[in-house]
Amino acid sequence: MKIESVDFFYLSMPEVLDIGDGSQDALLVRVRTNTGAEGWGECESSPLTSIAGWCTPMSHSACKPVSHSVLGKPVDEPSDIRRLTSEVRRNSFDLLQADHTFSGVEIALWDLLGRHLEQPAWKLLGWDRSFPKVAYASQLFGDTPEQTYQKAVGVRSKGFRAAKFGWGPFGINLAADEAQVRAAREGLGPHIELMVDAGTIWGEDVAQARLRVPVLEECRVTWLEEPFVSGALKAYRELGKGLTGKLRTAGGEGAHDPFVARNLMDFGGLGFVQIDAGRIGGLESAYSIARYAQAHDIRYVNHTFTTPLALSASLQPYAGLENSVYCEYPTEASAMARNLTTHSPVPDDDGMVQISDLPGLGMTLRKETLLKYLRTVEIRLSGKLIHQTASLD
Amino acid sequence: MKIESVDFFYLSMPEVLDIGDGSQDALLVRVRTNTGAEGWGECESSPLTSIAGWCTPMSHSACKPVSHSVLGKPVDEPSDIRRLTSEVRRNSFDLLQADHTFSGVEIALWDLLGRHLEQPAWKLLGWDRSFPKVAYASQLFGDTPEQTYQKAVGVRSKGFRAAKFGWGPFGINLAADEAQVRAAREGLGPHIELMVDAGTIWGEDVAQARLRVPVLEECRVTWLEEPFVSGALKAYRELGKGLTGKLRTAGGEGAHDPFVARNLMDFGGLGFVQIDAGRIGGLESAYSIARYAQAHDIRYVNHTFTTPLALSASLQPYAGLENSVYCEYPTEASAMARNLTTHSPVPDDDGMVQISDLPGLGMTLRKETLLKYLRTVEIRLSGKLIHQTASLD
Repeated sequence: MKIESVDFFYLSMPEVLDIGDGSQDALLVRVRTNTGAEGWGECESSPLTSIAGWCTPMSHSACKPVSHSVLGKPVDEPSDIRRLTSEVRRNSFDLLQADHTFSGVEIALWDLLGRHLEQPAWKLLGWDRSFPKVAYASQLFGDTPEQTYQKAVGVRSKGFRAAKFGWGPFGINLAADEAQVRAAREGLGPHIELMVDAGTIWGEDVAQARLRVPVLEECRVTWLEEPFVSGALKAYRELGKGLTGKLRTAGGEGAHDPFVARNLMDFGGLGFVQIDAGRIGGLESAYSIARYAQAHDIRYVNHTFTTPLALSASLQPYAGLENSVYCEYPTEASAMARNLTTHSPVPDDDGMVQISDLPGLGMTLRKETLLKYLRTVEIRLSGKLIHQTASLD
Repeated sequence: MKIESVDFFYLSMPEVLDIGDGSQDALLVRVRTNTGAEGWGECESSPLTSIAGWCTPMSHSACKPVSHSVLGKPVDEPSDIRRLTSEVRRNSFDLLQADHTFSGVEIALWDLLGRHLEQPAWKLLGWDRSFPKVAYASQLFGDTPEQTYQKAVGVRSKGFRAAKFGWGPFGINLAADEAQVRAAREGLGPHIELMVDAGTIWGEDVAQARLRVPVLEECRVTWLEEPFVSGALKAYRELGKGLTGKLRTAGGEGAHDPFVARNLMDFGGLGFVQIDAGRIGGLESAYSIARYAQAHDIRYVNHTFTTPLALSASLQPYAGLENSVYCEYPTEASAMARNLTTHSPVPDDDGMVQISDLPGLGMTLRKETLLKYLRTVEIRLSGKLIHQTASLD
C-alpha cells in the first residue's frame, strides 16, 4: 500500500477559554492509501501551526515540510512507519513544529496498519500482551480549596483509585497551595492515590518546589508533576535528589522528540516519565521511551488531555509494561472531545482501564461531531492555494 | 511606546534547492510602535510555519499564539523586551514553533529600541564594549575532494583566517571523509584554522564520530561541529571525554530555547556553543547563553546562515566576550540574501569582523530586494481572513 492522502481536520469549541484545558480544540489526521485503507490519528498541538508544518514549502535540505517524507511512501508493515519517523527527523530537523505535525500522522498510520492487519496498534509496536492500567482522574484544581475538596469527593464517588489535581491557582502562594493539597487529600479520603501537577509554574526555581515538598509528603502524594519546564534538567536533578520518601518527580509531557524525554531520565532523575504520543513523534517514539524507561527502572505514564482517540493512542506505547500502572484519564473534557467517538476507554468498577484488542486504535469517530466543530483552513502563497481542508467523505 | 504592529515578510528564491543552504529563503519581521518607531528582525526558521505560530487561534492557556503576548505591550527599555520573552515562554510553551516565531520579533524589538535610544543592540543587552571577531568562511564541502580543495584555496586567497566546511557528502564514508578533510587542509595551507561541520549526520552514533577523530586531529581541526543531534547529550558527553588534543566538539545551533544550549554545556561537554539568535528566542536568550558560556569557560560562537541582517543580529549577544573570538561568516549566500541590505559586516584585511556601533542592528534594508523576492501569505479559517501579508510601505 502507498500513502495517497493525508488530511488534517481542525476542530474547535466555538469559544476557547484561557484555562489549562487542552480539550478545547483538536487536530485530527486522516491517512488513506491507494488501496482504500484508512486510519485516524491526532496531534496534541496548535492545529493551524501544525498544518503549516505539513504544507509549507521547503526552506533547505534540513527544513522540508513533513509531507515531503510521507506522501507516496509504502506502508505495509511496522518497519515502514519506523522508517518514516527517521526520514521526517532527518528531512525536517530545522522545522521545529515538525514533531508535532508528524505525531498525528504517525498515529494514523498505526491505526491504518492495525486495521489492515487486524491487530491492535500495541501488538504491532511489539508488545505480546497488554496490562490494564489504574485510571487516574485528571483534573484542574478548583479556584478555592473548597472547590477542590468537592471535586475530590466527586472523584471518590465515581470509583477512581487515583486522582491528579493541577494548574489553576497552584504554585503562586505557599499557604494557598498547602490548603489546596490538603483539601484534595481530604476529599479523596485516605485510600485514593493523589498526584499533583505544578504545570511548570516554577520554571527552574528549585527552592519554590522544595517549599511544597512537606505538604506533598504529609498528604502522601505519589508524584509532583512538572515542577519545572522540560528542559530544566539541573533543577529536576537537584529536586529529585532531595526526595527521600515516597514522593517522586514526574515530567516529560513537553518532550517533542525522544531525546528530551531520555535526557530527563538520564540527567533529571525522574521517577515517572510522562509521554504525549501526540507530541513526541507518535507511537513508535513513545514506545522507544517506554522501553527505555523499563530498562532504567522508571515508570512510564501516558499524557493525554484531549479526546478519546488521543487517549487510546496514548495507551498503546506502554500497554505491555506491567509495572507502569498509571493511566491519565481526562474527566473534564469539552463536549467536542467527549462526543468525538462512538465509545471511549472507560474505567471498570475496579478503576482499571483495559486496553482495547480491537484493530488499530479501536476507535470509531462520529462524523456529525467532526462536522459540527470543524474549522476549515485555506492557505495561499502569492495567490496560489497550497492548502485547503479536505472533504470528510 | 506601545507595539502597534508586527508584520512578517516571507522572502524566497524562485527555486529552492535540496541542499544545505539556509539562505534560500528568509522570514523578516517588522515591528512598529504607536509613536512611529520601527525595527527589523529575522527568524531562522520555516517561514510559513512561523507565521502560523503568530496568528493561530489560542488552543488553551499554555498554547497561545505569539501575538497574544506581544501586541499592545510597552517597549521603552530593555527590561520590557525581557519581560516579553518570559511572557511568550509562559503563554506559548505548548506551541512548539513559538520560539522560532518569537526570535525574529524579539530581534526586531532590539533593533527598534536601539534606533530609538541611539545605541547598538549589544550595548543595550549589557556589554560595555565590543571585540572584533575572527570571521570564519562558512561553506559546504565540495562534491569531491578536488572541489573542496579549490574552495579552500579560494578562502585563502580572500584573506580569511579560518574556514569551516560541512554538510554535502560528509559523514557517510570514512575514506571519502578523510580525503575531504585533507583536501580542505591542503587548500587552506598550514596557517588558516579549519573547522568541520558534520550536520548531525551520525544521529547519536559515537563510534562513527570517533572514526573521524584521527584525521581531524591530523589536520589540526579546531572543532567538530554537530556530530550528533542537539538532544543527544550522552553521545556528546562520551565523544567529548575522548578528545585529549586540541580538537573540541561544537554544537547548539538547534537550540530553540536556552535550556537546550545549557544542557549541551552542562551535560554534553561542549567546547564551543553555537547559537542562532533567530531560533533560540532572540538576542536576550542568546545573550544569556553567552554569559553562561563565559561562566563555564566554554566558547560562544554565533550561528548564522542566511542574510546580513541575521549575521548582524548573531553578533550582538557575544560582542563583549573577548575570548569567544570566532564568527561564522556565510560566503555562499543566495543572491536574495546578499542583496537584502545596503551594506554588510565585512572582514577587514586582517580577517576580522568589527561589530557595528550604529544604532540597533545597524543595517538598512533594500526595499527593492524585499519586493523582488516577497511571497505573500493569506490564511483563512472557516472563510475568515486571519492573516495577510502587510504592505512594505
